[in-house]
Amino acid sequence: MFYHDRRLQYKVRVDKPNPAFAKMLQQAIGGIEGEIRVCLQYLFQAWGNRGPVKYKNMLLETGTEEIGHIEMLATAVALNLEGATTSLKDQIVGANPVVGAVMGGMDPRHFLSTGLAAMAADSNGVPFNGSWVVATGNIAADMIANVNAESSGRVLATRLWEATDDPGMKDMLSFLIARDTMHQNQWLAVIEELGGLKQQFPIPNSFPQNEEVQGFNYSFVTTNIYKDQEAFGRWAEGPSMDGKGTFQMVPGEPLGDIPILPPPAPEGHAQTE
Amino acid sequence: MFYHDRRLQYKVRVDKPNPAFAKMLQQAIGGIEGEIRVCLQYLFQAWGNRGPVKYKNMLLETGTEEIGHIEMLATAVALNLEGATTSLKDQIVGANPVVGAVMGGMDPRHFLSTGLAAMAADSNGVPFNGSWVVATGNIAADMIANVNAESSGRVLATRLWEATDDPGMKDMLSFLIARDTMHQNQWLAVIEELGGLKQQFPIPNSFPQNEEVQGFNYSFVTTNIYKDQEAFGRWAEGPSMDGKGTFQMVPGEPLGDIPILPPPAPEGHAQTE
Amino acid sequence: MFYHDRRLQYKVRVDKPNPAFAKMLQQAIGGIEGEIRVCLQYLFQAWGNRGPVKYKNMLLETGTEEIGHIEMLATAVALNLEGATTSLKDQIVGANPVVGAVMGGMDPRHFLSTGLAAMAADSNGVPFNGSWVVATGNIAADMIANVNAESSGRVLATRLWEATDDPGMKDMLSFLIARDTMHQNQWLAVIEELGGLKQQFPIPNSFPQNEEVQGFNYSFVTTNIYKDQEAFGRWAEGPSMDGKGTFQMVPGEPLGDIPILPPPAPEGHAQTE
Amino acid sequence: MFYHDRRLQYKVRVDKPNPAFAKMLQQAIGGIEGEIRVCLQYLFQAWGNRGPVKYKNMLLETGTEEIGHIEMLATAVALNLEGATTSLKDQIVGANPVVGAVMGGMDPRHFLSTGLAAMAADSNGVPFNGSWVVATGNIAADMIANVNAESSGRVLATRLWEATDDPGMKDMLSFLIARDTMHQNQWLAVIEELGGLKQQFPIPNSFPQNEEVQGFNYSFVTTNIYKDQEAFGRWAEGPSMDGKGTFQMVPGEPLGDIPILPPPAPEGHAQTE
Amino acid sequence: MFYHDRRLQYKVRVDKPNPAFAKMLQQAIGGIEGEIRVCLQYLFQAWGNRGPVKYKNMLLETGTEEIGHIEMLATAVALNLEGATTSLKDQIVGANPVVGAVMGGMDPRHFLSTGLAAMAADSNGVPFNGSWVVATGNIAADMIANVNAESSGRVLATRLWEATDDPGMKDMLSFLIARDTMHQNQWLAVIEELGGLKQQFPIPNSFPQNEEVQGFNYSFVTTNIYKDQEAFGRWAEGPSMDGKGTFQMVPGEPLGDIPILPPPAPEGHAQTE
Amino acid sequence: MFYHDRRLQYKVRVDKPNPAFAKMLQQAIGGIEGEIRVCLQYLFQAWGNRGPVKYKNMLLETGTEEIGHIEMLATAVALNLEGATTSLKDQIVGANPVVGAVMGGMDPRHFLSTGLAAMAADSNGVPFNGSWVVATGNIAADMIANVNAESSGRVLATRLWEATDDPGMKDMLSFLIARDTMHQNQWLAVIEELGGLKQQFPIPNSFPQNEEVQGFNYSFVTTNIYKDQEAFGRWAEGPSMDGKGTFQMVPGEPLGDIPILPPPAPEGHAQTE
Ligand SMILES: [Ca+2]
Ligand SMILES: [Ca+2]
Ligand SMILES: [Ca+2]
Ligand SMILES: [Ca+2]
Ligand SMILES: [Ca+2]
Ligand SMILES: [Ca+2]
Repeated sequence: MFYHDRRLQYKVRVDKPNPAFAKMLQQAIGGIEGEIRVCLQYLFQAWGNRGPVKYKNMLLETGTEEIGHIEMLATAVALNLEGATTSLKDQIVGANPVVGAVMGGMDPRHFLSTGLAAMAADSNGVPFNGSWVVATGNIAADMIANVNAESSGRVLATRLWEATDDPGMKDMLSFLIARDTMHQNQWLAVIEELGGLKQQFPIPNSFPQNEEVQGFNYSFVTTNIYKDQEAFGRWAEGPSMDGKGTFQMVPGEPLGDIPILPPPAPEGHAQTE
Repeated sequence: MFYHDRRLQYKVRVDKPNPAFAKMLQQAIGGIEGEIRVCLQYLFQAWGNRGPVKYKNMLLETGTEEIGHIEMLATAVALNLEGATTSLKDQIVGANPVVGAVMGGMDPRHFLSTGLAAMAADSNGVPFNGSWVVATGNIAADMIANVNAESSGRVLATRLWEATDDPGMKDMLSFLIARDTMHQNQWLAVIEELGGLKQQFPIPNSFPQNEEVQGFNYSFVTTNIYKDQEAFGRWAEGPSMDGKGTFQMVPGEPLGDIPILPPPAPEGHAQTE
Repeated sequence: MFYHDRRLQYKVRVDKPNPAFAKMLQQAIGGIEGEIRVCLQYLFQAWGNRGPVKYKNMLLETGTEEIGHIEMLATAVALNLEGATTSLKDQIVGANPVVGAVMGGMDPRHFLSTGLAAMAADSNGVPFNGSWVVATGNIAADMIANVNAESSGRVLATRLWEATDDPGMKDMLSFLIARDTMHQNQWLAVIEELGGLKQQFPIPNSFPQNEEVQGFNYSFVTTNIYKDQEAFGRWAEGPSMDGKGTFQMVPGEPLGDIPILPPPAPEGHAQTE
Repeated sequence: MFYHDRRLQYKVRVDKPNPAFAKMLQQAIGGIEGEIRVCLQYLFQAWGNRGPVKYKNMLLETGTEEIGHIEMLATAVALNLEGATTSLKDQIVGANPVVGAVMGGMDPRHFLSTGLAAMAADSNGVPFNGSWVVATGNIAADMIANVNAESSGRVLATRLWEATDDPGMKDMLSFLIARDTMHQNQWLAVIEELGGLKQQFPIPNSFPQNEEVQGFNYSFVTTNIYKDQEAFGRWAEGPSMDGKGTFQMVPGEPLGDIPILPPPAPEGHAQTE
Repeated sequence: MFYHDRRLQYKVRVDKPNPAFAKMLQQAIGGIEGEIRVCLQYLFQAWGNRGPVKYKNMLLETGTEEIGHIEMLATAVALNLEGATTSLKDQIVGANPVVGAVMGGMDPRHFLSTGLAAMAADSNGVPFNGSWVVATGNIAADMIANVNAESSGRVLATRLWEATDDPGMKDMLSFLIARDTMHQNQWLAVIEELGGLKQQFPIPNSFPQNEEVQGFNYSFVTTNIYKDQEAFGRWAEGPSMDGKGTFQMVPGEPLGDIPILPPPAPEGHAQTE
Repeated sequence: MFYHDRRLQYKVRVDKPNPAFAKMLQQAIGGIEGEIRVCLQYLFQAWGNRGPVKYKNMLLETGTEEIGHIEMLATAVALNLEGATTSLKDQIVGANPVVGAVMGGMDPRHFLSTGLAAMAADSNGVPFNGSWVVATGNIAADMIANVNAESSGRVLATRLWEATDDPGMKDMLSFLIARDTMHQNQWLAVIEELGGLKQQFPIPNSFPQNEEVQGFNYSFVTTNIYKDQEAFGRWAEGPSMDGKGTFQMVPGEPLGDIPILPPPAPEGHAQTE
């Protein structure tokens, strides 16, 4: 179960409210790269964990931390919306186009739906989608999903950091960026503890590789019509990254037939000629 | 631009059609772990590539291959649906509950909407969602997103392989599993070529880490109320995986204040007491 | 079955077209607080009504009225888009940034997809979603859902009223706000007719409360780590609103164990160490 | 910020695992009536609260409790899925139609995507949608939204209670039903503290009612073609529930004109005849 | 504005309730081929109509009729769910697998969320989506969209007709199929009245075709690597259907260059090597 | 299976980058009228084709071509975003409102999520949705769906052409418009080859029309309360377009009864009074 402290994990201060930046911050709340996603992802991974239990415990720790990141960003959105209504009205009624220019990037729902507060949506107002919560039941796969979430999340946070010159916002983002650094490292550390890339890859490592169609599991297949070498690289020669094969480059070509389906069932009412 | 050969990349054969398995295969077509996602993900990453160009070329190669994987699975769905209508009718009209039991897992839209063919949807009929297509403009972040897609995708494929005893389906899945093995290795090879984890992490590696709030970028924060060590592991001691810090374990505690927002704007029509 | 009159339920006039306001009006058409939602919600409640039949009749009356509200708003959107294309082009081609500033809030799909007309979407272009249509089969629950819809809907309408100084739009909104006033009262009147809050709460009132885990059904549980009284209020003392219990405040604490799941099934292909 | 205890708020025990019931429980996790929705709804309302602060504190208390309800249900889903894979395979391979009958209601993603664990989705596998998180910036409107969520939520929980005879599941649901009872009462208590229905309705109570189009704010409008009295009830006579008007029943009739839009703009490329 | 009659447009009778068929009927209510879609599509086309006004009037007539079709189907769903709960419980508690087999196709939300009534969702419980409502502002394009909706809708209805042997359901579907026949013809009649295919195609007919890149507007482009004639047909020779060109078959080949994008902007934080 | 050439099907050049136009172009990539939809629609129709096989071949040809159209547009988006970040920052930090005015229409995710590249989303950032991919198993129905897609697609393309004065963009759009012209003609040619409208309509032509409720399959039903002739037209007199009936105009009137549902099942926990 869960508890809270009314204080924030880190301070949130907005020196100069900016509704357009409030809209951009929504990406870090309800976007696919955002904090609701990582929060639910880590918690669902923990709740579905079937051992070793230490990973469940660890996921609970960090999943719980992420709730507080949503909280920080939601607070930041609300603070950035101070004064937005007046400017919005100027924009809508056409009284002040210069103000309107600045306000042009405001999310209308920040006024219409929330009365100047955050939403569970991304920077375009697209609602958070539960399909983004990845919990596969395979810890290695989940750790990669988590590195992915924290990588795109940290890229996002650095772009938000670039898009503002508000000292308070830059400070808050610098904290969140630091946490993303840790979290990327943290999920990689699990993979190391599980034996590292060579032990865990290919994921899942529990499938017998002799059941794979041999000759295709370490081959880079070209599909360009010239079958040339423009895409040559590390992935086309040398030992594979999982240490279990040798990369080679092979031209793509069809091994299957032209598929022909049986005629339609009468009750499906296809066309008749 | 793109070309096709009417033949399949690998043979698709169904020995004993099974509508419930057709439904399950949809997860590999239109689910978040599926082939439409990786196909569009690699192609959008290629089309947005701003260098080095060799990665664009490589992404085009594999993105194009994936179209053929959707094709194989769509063919497999259609072949598994042979005879489904008769059984479906038996089920619906209640004439044959035993057949109905087998058919119980059929997706009704496989008859109603497609006339016994595949859809751009997952195994619950939830439509493919473009938000799953990750292309960040940072190659390292994208590679991790791709390893993620191929990891959850290969986990899915091995589960489908377990769920069937149809030799044709097992063979097709063994080919797709092999390709997933290669693709996991392939994306990891890019990271190695870019200098490896230590060079690329934390992602993005182009953000100056001295701008991070120091003291939090390599700290595992506990949020359990006992502040105990149950979640202790590699992520809490020793050098960080990116080689740029030393892990430590710190108790979570609030550094921010209780956030208080200014009163509502009158035009937002909050309640009055 | 249904009929129409080509005339509107109330007059719709736009004195000064404003594409940014057209975009905002979409929230009242296809947003979660909008008219498509209430229209379908009341109709689906009526169509699923299992008695008393007077409520079915009443829901049909009002559900039908709401179609006319969508119609009024769709007309208002189209009228607000007059002249939008010229300004849009100025904006896009960069000829007139000041005009562009005013146009900046236009929904591009109002030109691109509809040729200057309304859509079944909200103010961010997010499509109407059928999941918002609540019809539970419990009339009291449905009435609360309806009060909810009309409350957030009237809050929205008053904010739209604030955001415009167009006399025609203000007049139309004043009519819709009046109808929302009636509809809030109307759904509350049903609850009174069903015996009032004390008779109907807790919803559903047909579940035997002695089956509830006693001691938790009228207790306010604190989850802040200090277990302090900062959240003390009417909900923590005195008789409960349904008249069936006495509020008390209790500290949150775990009554369950640490959940441990059995190990993964082999065919699920979890990681191996 | 937030903390957790590894123990559950209330005990979760499954005596006889049932994958079909696991699927049904998903409605209480990721459905519109579910715990993710109330959890995020109360937290976003707290984070956007602009006073009085006691309501923010109270919302934080209960929003935090709800995380623990998701946790309980996610645990219940995982426990109900024990043994599901074996039965699933029997069903798919057609070896045992009687077992298949029981398994017919399983969500395929509970095996394919999660390896026998819960998802952020409803009982049909439709992902949780952030649009359901209502936080309007008007406390009275929010409280009604919360009563709505807890009413449809408690209706759902009682139906789940009816659908199982597993003693452990019945016990867990009896706890959650008790909490729903409290939460319904809790949100109603806020409205009482804010002055009660007569003080707060119509919501928002801060809009000047003399700006409403008079004559329509307390009139029940009939839209049936016979203008008969079949829908007569408390809502059509007597004082309005907010004490500010008198209900009357009026026949629906158009007050507006037939709307005629100007011709299309040439650059919109309408048809030419 | 709109009116209703409490009676249905056509009789709805269910002789033998069938929850699995109730689920299938949902496709005709809230699916992309369903009645909510056509209802809103015709109404939005009417409300956005910019002349000739006769088409607006006609669209209003039929859009209004479609509300009554949703009503008929919603009634049919509710009637098919009679007795479903008992069977569902048998299934869930495992008491009667044979009954369970028949019930296996039930939508759990038909019990859990609606108490045995229809939803605004498709046969997989995927909510109706407003993006399906097509209204382009070009009447010819809209008529084709409508023929499309009625074609896939009538295909669906005939499949539902095949899937049931309930005389009442077959009768109701025979009525809806008849109306689809009319509506397909109706939208084609508009195109004829607008001058026919040769006058209206290519849609939009108001774009000057000399602005098209010549040589590509009547050429069938092959993209198979053999450039063979396997796809030869009416579309590759003879006069075009719009009478404005002559079909020819040309081999696909790239006319553009390899696209190379400029390097990334520093503030986007791409990887560095 | 599929191949690619690194060169584009047609040249893509942007003379003056414009982030607001990049946003608009997204509608042609990931909108319902866009290229991802037609690409997947034609390919899924091909993959589900059950004969005649020539249509499968033809659909593969064009489905493959459409991948190249996504590619062209994705390239155009990236090129239009050149320099966007600088302007965006000016806008956000408020340094240059005039630039901000021009930038006001930028999609924030074009910077935040993609680093200045295209997404699988529409012009409002709403993700591509797989439900738009129509493949019914009836070729005539599919061809109409395709004409629909290409009609709304060509309307969109001409509007984009109007919205820009960039010579490169106008040229690219002129090519895509030309291809839409061909594709509209192409799908109509299939219907002609299948015997034409009179042979194929009503779709599906394989349902025995004597099973339709007679008297309603060629009747235009009025639903306006005056039953007047304002909507009279070709659809109300003369031979039907499919040559199988004679249009007539009939007043809408209910043929069914008032539907009364049985009382609720106890386990559904409706209200009690
Ligand atoms: Ca975080
Ligand atoms: Ca693949
Ligand atoms: Ca209304
Ligand atoms: Ca709860
Ligand atoms: Ca219809
Ligand atoms: Ca195209």
